[in-house]
Amino acid sequence: MLTGSIPLHQFQWPKIAPPAFIFGNEASGLDADFEKIGTPLIIPHSSHIDSLNLSIAVSIGLYHANTVRPHELDEES
Amino acid sequence: MLTGSIPLHQFQWPKIAPPAFIFGNEASGLDADFEKIGTPLIIPHSSHIDSLNLSIAVSIGLYHANTVRPHELDEES
Repeated sequence: MLTGSIPLHQFQWPKIAPPAFIFGNEASGLDADFEKIGTPLIIPHSSHIDSLNLSIAVSIGLYHANTVRPHELDEES
Repeated sequence: MLTGSIPLHQFQWPKIAPPAFIFGNEASGLDADFEKIGTPLIIPHSSHIDSLNLSIAVSIGLYHANTVRPHELDEES
């Protein structure tokens, strides 16, 4: 599954639970079955590269979840 | 200089120019002279680690500058 269509920074975070990220490998992504249990997200990147290094993708996801996301939730409440 | 006091995700981006990031090394940061030409920023992280790996910090900075920042500028305009 390489069909993540919602950019990470535009995702509307649910307020009911802390997020969990599941990452697939850089070439093929996750098995399509995972789509049933979550929302596919994509970290936008240059078309000049095939994918982000996995450790980089994890770092950006955790950064977003721990900084930008709480900031957005604060602004909404 | 390890005195970055504004969290990256809370920085008010100037609209007059695209940003440029300058990174120092993980142990001592940049020379204090750099404070004269820019705004020291910090990427918040757990107190259980000393610093972020430099490639991770660069990735998060570029992610933020290319996704979250334009998004914020759009909302303001």
